Amino acid sequence: MAYHDDTVGERQAGNGILSRRFFLRGVGASIATASVGVAAARSESMMAPGGPMTDDGSPSPFEAHVVRSPISSAAGTTGAGVSRTPLQHLTGLITPSRLHFERHHSGIPAIDPGQHRLAVHGLVSRPSAFSVESLDRYPMVSRIQFLECSGNSGACTAPNPVPGTAASLHGLVSTSEWIGVPLAVLLDEVGIDDAARWVVAEGADAAVMSRSIPLDKALDDAIVALYQNGERLRPGNGYPMRLFLPGWEGNASVKWLRSLDVTDRPAMTKDETSKYTDLRDDGLAEQFTFPMGVKSLITSPSPGLSLEGPGVYAVSGIAWSGAGRITRVEVSADGGRSWGEAELIGEALPLCSTPFRVAWSWDGGEATLLSRAYDESGAVQPSRSAALAGRGPGSFYHYNGIQAWRIDAAGEASNVYV
Amino acid sequence: MAYHDDTVGERQAGNGILSRRFFLRGVGASIATASVGVAAARSESMMAPGGPMTDDGSPSPFEAHVVRSPISSAAGTTGAGVSRTPLQHLTGLITPSRLHFERHHSGIPAIDPGQHRLAVHGLVSRPSAFSVESLDRYPMVSRIQFLECSGNSGACTAPNPVPGTAASLHGLVSTSEWIGVPLAVLLDEVGIDDAARWVVAEGADAAVMSRSIPLDKALDDAIVALYQNGERLRPGNGYPMRLFLPGWEGNASVKWLRSLDVTDRPAMTKDETSKYTDLRDDGLAEQFTFPMGVKSLITSPSPGLSLEGPGVYAVSGIAWSGAGRITRVEVSADGGRSWGEAELIGEALPLCSTPFRVAWSWDGGEATLLSRAYDESGAVQPSRSAALAGRGPGSFYHYNGIQAWRIDAAGEASNVYV
Repeated sequence: MAYHDDTVGERQAGNGILSRRFFLRGVGASIATASVGVAAARSESMMAPGGPMTDDGSPSPFEAHVVRSPISSAAGTTGAGVSRTPLQHLTGLITPSRLHFERHHSGIPAIDPGQHRLAVHGLVSRPSAFSVESLDRYPMVSRIQFLECSGNSGACTAPNPVPGTAASLHGLVSTSEWIGVPLAVLLDEVGIDDAARWVVAEGADAAVMSRSIPLDKALDDAIVALYQNGERLRPGNGYPMRLFLPGWEGNASVKWLRSLDVTDRPAMTKDETSKYTDLRDDGLAEQFTFPMGVKSLITSPSPGLSLEGPGVYAVSGIAWSGAGRITRVEVSADGGRSWGEAELIGEALPLCSTPFRVAWSWDGGEATLLSRAYDESGAVQPSRSAALAGRGPGSFYHYNGIQAWRIDAAGEASNVYV
Repeated sequence: MAYHDDTVGERQAGNGILSRRFFLRGVGASIATASVGVAAARSESMMAPGGPMTDDGSPSPFEAHVVRSPISSAAGTTGAGVSRTPLQHLTGLITPSRLHFERHHSGIPAIDPGQHRLAVHGLVSRPSAFSVESLDRYPMVSRIQFLECSGNSGACTAPNPVPGTAASLHGLVSTSEWIGVPLAVLLDEVGIDDAARWVVAEGADAAVMSRSIPLDKALDDAIVALYQNGERLRPGNGYPMRLFLPGWEGNASVKWLRSLDVTDRPAMTKDETSKYTDLRDDGLAEQFTFPMGVKSLITSPSPGLSLEGPGVYAVSGIAWSGAGRITRVEVSADGGRSWGEAELIGEALPLCSTPFRVAWSWDGGEATLLSRAYDESGAVQPSRSAALAGRGPGSFYHYNGIQAWRIDAAGEASNVYV
C-alpha cells in the first residue's frame, strides 16, 4: 500500500508534530489510502452463513494477543502480584472488564454473594450489617472513573531504563463505570458519632487488606461499588462489593469489602505502614499519599507496535488525574525540546481516563516521543527527574513522571530516559 | 433479616412512590439493615489464599445466569435472529461487551482484519480502500452511546400482553463506548462530488446488509467504528469495523462494513424495502424512520425478579432517546394515575442510556409500575395506545411505548397493558 504525504500540514512542534487542524475536516491531506476501482469482488465471508448468536460474546480470535500481560507473582505464589492492562492495544476511555488490572496480595477469594455481609460499626449509633440484596435497595451513583495502583510505573524509578511495554511499565491503571451506594448514605443510616474522624475498611481476602480512610473522603464521594461496566464486579476487582475512592491510590479502594469500622484515628494497619508510604530523602516518610497525581502515557506508538516506514501516524494515549479533569495534553517528538497540543477525545470526565491524539509526520529518522498532561487544579505532569526529586532510596510509589519512547530508524520503540 | 420502615418519607405519587429527597443524605430513613454486634468472625474466604491472577477475567460463577438470553433464530438457522441483553440484571449505563445484543441475518462472518478493506467509492474524486491499519492513523472520536434494533420491543405491539422479561421483550438495546473515525474525514479524504446526496453502506456478511444513509448524517456524526469499550469490536458487533450512526435504528449501523458507495439517491436495498419501514393505517408506509424515539424501561422490579415482602425498594431502569439527552423520567406505581419524578444517575450523556432510580414503599398489595421518559427536544414517551395510533396491521418496528409491570401480592411481576 502506498502512503501519500502530499500535504502534511502545518507543523506545531519540532520533528513532525502536526497542527491540531490537521485532524479537522477540510484539511484535505491524505494519510493512508490505496486507490481502488470498484469494490465488486465478494470476500470469502460473504459466500456462506457465519457463526451463531451466543449467550456470552468473546473477542475475535485475531485479538488473542489482547490479554492482561505480563502477570507477575511473588516467588512460590500465584496470587501475590499483578496482571496488567494491555494499554498499547486499547483505544478510548473504558477498559473492558476482562482486561481490568489486578493487584492481589493473597489471591481472589471465592465469595457467595448471598452469604456476604458488610458490617458498618464502631463509633456509630446503629451498628448494622448489609447484604448485597439490601444494598441494592439504596440510592446509587454511577461514575466512569480511573483506578490506579499506587505502585504503577514504579519500574520507571530504576536508575537505568528498564525494557518494557506500556503494559509492563504502566499497566496498573484502568477505567470503568463504577456503580454503587454512596458511603455517606450508609454512614447516615447507622448514625456516626461526633467523635468519628476515620473509617477503617477491611477486605475478605486472606491477606485482609485494611486501610484507614479520612471521614471527609468517606462522606464526600466514596461509594460501596456493586457494579462495574453495568454488571456485577468481576471477582478479580472485588466481587461482590468493594470500596471505591475516586481519584485515590488503588489499594485504598478495598476489594471484597466486609467491614467499615468508624474510628477517631487512623489504625495504621500493616498495609499502610509496610507499604504505600513515600520515603523522603530527609529520612522521614509521608504518612499518607492518597490522591494519584496528574499523568499521561503515549500508548501508540510504543514498544511492540512497530512503525512501518515514514508517513503520518496518530500519536495517541491516555491522561488522568486524581485532582479532577484533564485540561490539556502536549506531545513532543524531539525529546521534550518542543511541544504541540494534542486533541482530547471522548467525554472528558473528571477523574477519568481522557484519551488524546495528535498527528505526527515521521520522516524515518530517530525520534523521542513524550506526552505531558495538565489538570484542572493547575498541576502539570512532572519530568522524570522532577518526579524523583526529594525521594528517599527505594521510594517507588505514586510515580507520575513523563514517559519517553525512543523511535529508531527501524520504527521500533523503546523505553528511555530524557 | 428484618426490614425497617419507620420513616418512609414523604410520598410524591400514589401507591408508594417516595420523594426524591428520600434518596438524599440526611433523611435518616432505614431501608434494609440487620443489627450486628461486631464483625469479628472471619469468613471462610479469609482462611486460605484465593485464586490466581489471570490474563482474561471472567464473571463470578455466581453470575452464571447473567448471559444474553433468550436467543432466537429463524427455524433451521443459527444465525438469522437475535441474542438479547439481560437488562434486568444490569445496573448503570455501560453494557458489558460480552452482553451486547446481537441481531444477525446470516450469522457472524469470520474476518481477518489484515485482509479486510473498506472501499469508499461512487460519486467521489479519489476512490479509495482503507485497511484497519490505515484507519488507525486517522483522527478518532469516542462517544458512549446506545444502539437499539428497530425491532426492539416489537412483541409489545401484540394485541394481548406476551409473558416476558425485560430481556425477552426489550433486550435489543445496549450502550457502549464507540471509538472510530468520523465518516466526514474519510469522505473529505476521497472528495465527494457536488451531486452526492446519499451513501449506501454494505456489510461483509453473507446476507450483505445494505442501507442508504443521507449525506447529512454521514457528514454529521457518523463514524466508522473500530473499538468498542476500549478494545476492538466484538465479532458479533461488527469486527473489525462497522458504521455507527448515533441515535439511529440499529440496522443502519452496518456491521462488518466493506463498502460505502456515494450516490445521488437512496438505493432502496432489499433491507430497506422488505424490512424496517413503518406501515401506516392509510395503506402508505413511511419510507425511512431513522432516529429511535424517546423510551424508558423499568428493569427492577421486573419479571423474574421477585419482591420479598413489603418494604422499601429501588425502582430502577434506563432511558434513552435518538433525539439527544434524557431530561426527565417519571415513575408510577398505580398504573399511570399518578407520577413521581425519578433521580437520573450517571453521566447523563446525549444519545446514551441514562439510568434512573426512585424509592418505592411497597405495602404488599397489587401495584402496576410504569416509567415515562422526556428528552431535550421536548418529546415524551407515548403510552402504548398512542405509540400504536396510526399504524397499519403488522407494523411492529420503532415501538417506544410505555411498559407496565403488574406486581402481584406474591411480589411477582408480569407484562400487562394499561
